[in-house]
Amino acid sequence: MINITLPDGSVRSFEAGITPMGVAQDISEGFARNVISATFNTTKVETTTPLQTDGDLTLYTWRDKEGKEAFWHSSSHVLAQALEELYPGVKLTIGPAIDNGFYYDVDLGDNVISDKDFKKIEDKMLEIARGKHDFKMRAVTKTEALDFYKSQNNEFKVELIQNLEDGTITFCDHDSFTDLCRGGHIPNTGIIKAVKIMSVAGAYWRGDENKPQLTRVYGTSFPKQKELKEYLELIEEAKKRDHRKLGKELELFTFSQKVGQGLPLWLPKGAALRERLENFLKAAQKKAGYEMVVSPHIGSKELYVTSGHYAKYGEDSFQPITTPKDDEEFLLKPMNCPHHCEIYNSKPFSYKDLPKRFAEFGTVYRYEQSGELHGLSRVRGFTQDDAHIFCMPDQLDQEFKNVIDLSLYVLGSLGFETFTAQVSVRDPENPDKYIGDVENWEKAENAILNAVKDKGLDYVIEEGEAAFYGPKLDFMVKDALGRSWQLGTIQVDYNLPERFDLTYKGSDNELHRPVMIHRAPFGSMERFIALLLEHTGGNFPLWLNPEQVMILSISEKYEKYAENVLNLLENHEIRALVDNRNETIGKKIREAEMKKYPYMIIVGEQEAEKGTISVRKHGQQDLGSITIEQFADLVKSEINSTLKQFN
Amino acid sequence: MINITLPDGSVRSFEAGITPMGVAQDISEGFARNVISATFNTTKVETTTPLQTDGDLTLYTWRDKEGKEAFWHSSSHVLAQALEELYPGVKLTIGPAIDNGFYYDVDLGDNVISDKDFKKIEDKMLEIARGKHDFKMRAVTKTEALDFYKSQNNEFKVELIQNLEDGTITFCDHDSFTDLCRGGHIPNTGIIKAVKIMSVAGAYWRGDENKPQLTRVYGTSFPKQKELKEYLELIEEAKKRDHRKLGKELELFTFSQKVGQGLPLWLPKGAALRERLENFLKAAQKKAGYEMVVSPHIGSKELYVTSGHYAKYGEDSFQPITTPKDDEEFLLKPMNCPHHCEIYNSKPFSYKDLPKRFAEFGTVYRYEQSGELHGLSRVRGFTQDDAHIFCMPDQLDQEFKNVIDLSLYVLGSLGFETFTAQVSVRDPENPDKYIGDVENWEKAENAILNAVKDKGLDYVIEEGEAAFYGPKLDFMVKDALGRSWQLGTIQVDYNLPERFDLTYKGSDNELHRPVMIHRAPFGSMERFIALLLEHTGGNFPLWLNPEQVMILSISEKYEKYAENVLNLLENHEIRALVDNRNETIGKKIREAEMKKYPYMIIVGEQEAEKGTISVRKHGQQDLGSITIEQFADLVKSEINSTLKQFN
Repeated sequence: MINITLPDGSVRSFEAGITPMGVAQDISEGFARNVISATFNTTKVETTTPLQTDGDLTLYTWRDKEGKEAFWHSSSHVLAQALEELYPGVKLTIGPAIDNGFYYDVDLGDNVISDKDFKKIEDKMLEIARGKHDFKMRAVTKTEALDFYKSQNNEFKVELIQNLEDGTITFCDHDSFTDLCRGGHIPNTGIIKAVKIMSVAGAYWRGDENKPQLTRVYGTSFPKQKELKEYLELIEEAKKRDHRKLGKELELFTFSQKVGQGLPLWLPKGAALRERLENFLKAAQKKAGYEMVVSPHIGSKELYVTSGHYAKYGEDSFQPITTPKDDEEFLLKPMNCPHHCEIYNSKPFSYKDLPKRFAEFGTVYRYEQSGELHGLSRVRGFTQDDAHIFCMPDQLDQEFKNVIDLSLYVLGSLGFETFTAQVSVRDPENPDKYIGDVENWEKAENAILNAVKDKGLDYVIEEGEAAFYGPKLDFMVKDALGRSWQLGTIQVDYNLPERFDLTYKGSDNELHRPVMIHRAPFGSMERFIALLLEHTGGNFPLWLNPEQVMILSISEKYEKYAENVLNLLENHEIRALVDNRNETIGKKIREAEMKKYPYMIIVGEQEAEKGTISVRKHGQQDLGSITIEQFADLVKSEINSTLKQFN
Repeated sequence: MINITLPDGSVRSFEAGITPMGVAQDISEGFARNVISATFNTTKVETTTPLQTDGDLTLYTWRDKEGKEAFWHSSSHVLAQALEELYPGVKLTIGPAIDNGFYYDVDLGDNVISDKDFKKIEDKMLEIARGKHDFKMRAVTKTEALDFYKSQNNEFKVELIQNLEDGTITFCDHDSFTDLCRGGHIPNTGIIKAVKIMSVAGAYWRGDENKPQLTRVYGTSFPKQKELKEYLELIEEAKKRDHRKLGKELELFTFSQKVGQGLPLWLPKGAALRERLENFLKAAQKKAGYEMVVSPHIGSKELYVTSGHYAKYGEDSFQPITTPKDDEEFLLKPMNCPHHCEIYNSKPFSYKDLPKRFAEFGTVYRYEQSGELHGLSRVRGFTQDDAHIFCMPDQLDQEFKNVIDLSLYVLGSLGFETFTAQVSVRDPENPDKYIGDVENWEKAENAILNAVKDKGLDYVIEEGEAAFYGPKLDFMVKDALGRSWQLGTIQVDYNLPERFDLTYKGSDNELHRPVMIHRAPFGSMERFIALLLEHTGGNFPLWLNPEQVMILSISEKYEKYAENVLNLLENHEIRALVDNRNETIGKKIREAEMKKYPYMIIVGEQEAEKGTISVRKHGQQDLGSITIEQFADLVKSEINSTLKQFN
């Protein structure tokens, strides 16, 4: 008999040789029907692998990340079989699961695959899937493995096998197909009900451009046709919401080759949006006791030697700036914390002065390879909504709660309702790799956990994910398309206070070391605005939109009335524009729709006579003819429903 | 007979040999009493030099820059004589007039001069001055000159004479003293009524640290004792108002050796002051039709090659930033204009869209040698209140007037009432050194002059001071101590539109070149705040002060009432602080005085009972006990008296 421990801590006894699927069936037949993969003592196993010892077993369904991985990994075997059958002589290389699907890199010889062939491949894959073929692992000797692929003239698999140790090599069979494989499959091909070939691309063997060029076939698959359909719709929607596309359409930002890749230029509407976001956070931060500071965008190399950043990142960063006369070297600042430490150090503080909270919208520069740049979400220069809190260890608890309050206020005001707090704590097995004393670490980890529980947040604890200098909390936000973004880190730091020798005089008249909290609710203005664009599709919350209302005059005759309406709206602090161009009203409306103005006001004879306005809300139907006062109330109540006061 | 033309264009005839003083006496005896120096056909002459030809004569009094220069140059002869008499064997080298006085570099041998000796030197100088000795120039041969100084063992003067050409060498005699000298003296020593030795310092012969070390004796002198007294008071006041000292006392900014020299760190109060100034200008700029943009602090080297800045300044600037992987080079941006040109270029514009006015508080970095750095007024990183106006040539006139209006509004709101507009135009003798066609230059120069006249500004025209790419206007501001600062350049530019190939589509459907105006009413936030500190002595206009009111509670018992007062003031949008520390009211008042809070409110038993407040205005006496509403009205009316609405 062996004892199998399940994730909930419960232990079940079975005869040795029981399979993960057997355990699943022992739990419930219904559950077993959904189980598609498993790990035993943290190692991937097949659902059919006999278990011979006591151990921890985790069973996964399609809902789990691990289940999806097994599903897509298995699907790549089916793709490989389909390609072998459709393109005889094709040489397989590797075919892993990736985010949202899988690919297989193949040498097609003289064959070519174009999008016209996708349907044929999908049909072949579905035909194989419908056969409900079991995936079966088998151990082979190195010689057997080499012979198998030599007989196929597949020099790629031969090379892979030559690098493996005899006794560790396994093949996976299903139907008539065999592949070199480490395992981790779903029970059989029949579970795959929907497949889609997404694209083909070029790839080099082993990613080396001096080696043979291969064809990479990307695919995805699902256990239900409906899920595939939803996924494809999501991709279409994501394309429409691509912040690079929307940023151009809404004239928010641009890039210039001459200025440099990854260095956004903010156009007037984008700069106004940014400033509004900054002012929103500034107002909340002021209430929360933060003080703004301003620091330069460079610092002497010495500063980053002190902070430790130079030793760690120096070689991979923008290189030092030398000067023509003095013997000095400067670096573009990759972060604001060393500057803020020097601000803290400019004056002695006592326990009565703490916490000090220094905030800055600080633009930092970090080198990224040009191939890794992506719109606003991966750039070389970005503005952090940064702040550093210098406090006594006993104040950590309250400060953490305050920062969470502020973060929740920010996320809530911007329409993010689904998020998880990810708490990164020490690795209990490596207690020595952390700086700062154990007592302080306990305090800090408890401060975070207490705060998270106190605020009733959905949270996960990630053991071993803490930085060496302190534990942290990340907000993982889901956007409107269900994609996860990491936002708003709150990080405890015991390291920089040491390195910069920061002190405060305690009530005991002795000097003590403060603790530092780094925090940025937006993360960076660039990445946050990218997210906001993709989350809202460019339909920003009304309070944030730089231009809330577009006023359209039906013809020249009503230009003056349109201007009057503009002035009256400005008196109500509503941000509006007039389109008095000599164009048809239809064209003006279409253009205003495209620019996503939250409200459109149309004025013509009837409105001018009655002193009213005709209002349309973006993406909705007409609100009819109302007075300006009624409209102002409407706008105010819409704003108040999302943008609360912080305190 | 010769004809002498005076600066007002009038011509007088005299017998050849008439002296400048003779001409002065011919004009009026009263005027002649004040004349102390002269130039004839732009060459410095003595007031006693016989004039032998027709020519232009200018006569100077102490009020003129040239008069002061002659006065101080002559005073340095008197200093030299005093040193020779007091320190026999002293070797004289050179002794020029400088701003606000003069110095003489001497080799004292084994003697030392300390501040204890200053009185003795001053007394000796005054004794010589009282002798009313005439300054008399005489020509000497090179041999005579060399023999004179060889007999004194003065190798320095010998070296100077060896580099002169025979036939050009002159000595100046007065009393028993003789010096090698090119001329330009006041009539006699008796005009010098007040002298002051300011300091002594080390200096190297010819400024070369490998050559002998000399002693530099700094002095100043005046025609009236009262003027010396006023000057010394001004220096004392300037020391008190030194922005570096005030910046520290008011906790506005700091520097850190680790961050780097010339890179200010703005502390919370300074950052708040800066932000308030920025918001003030932003609000006015918004009304004036500017749009804010945001650009990065670096640009690819290519950008500055295009703009021409790299060729012109590259070698003397912060050196290029290289990257570890991509073959790219970046530069810290020394100015914002190339970025704004690229923003203009991101979209096609038509004549209907112009003018476009892009504004940015853009932080730029320019290398200065460490020895040249000075507080906030000479730094390596500073934030320009920059904007670039892209307009059609015909719009230049109106745009220039608008920019002047904005500049006057800014200066007026900040208490600068005395300024001159300095208009820099082409050199009429070198018409070829300017780019852009003549017609456009005429338009631009006329636009500036029309605007300056239209606004009734005090102005001077500086011929030949225009940049090669366009004419400009600088505001020269006088601070409270009468010192001149250059502020608020408005510069026309025909160059960058060419280099960046900027265009707009005209009403003729053809592409045309826009004109660019660069302008910055503050110049830079750093330099402007330095000026503002020295101008106001830290007593900022009430609307600008980050903390307008300090509330002091007489004892613990009134803490709560003080907090109530704070809340009530906040309701009136008055920025206040409470000092509830357990300190004596005397100490609290002294500290609040030092921090220069515009108003102090003191609350104790009487106030708490009656619901009133006791108010003191900084630097003035008590305003007595009033209600909070009365105080709020007072504050509002004071603010409205300086800070008007723009347009």
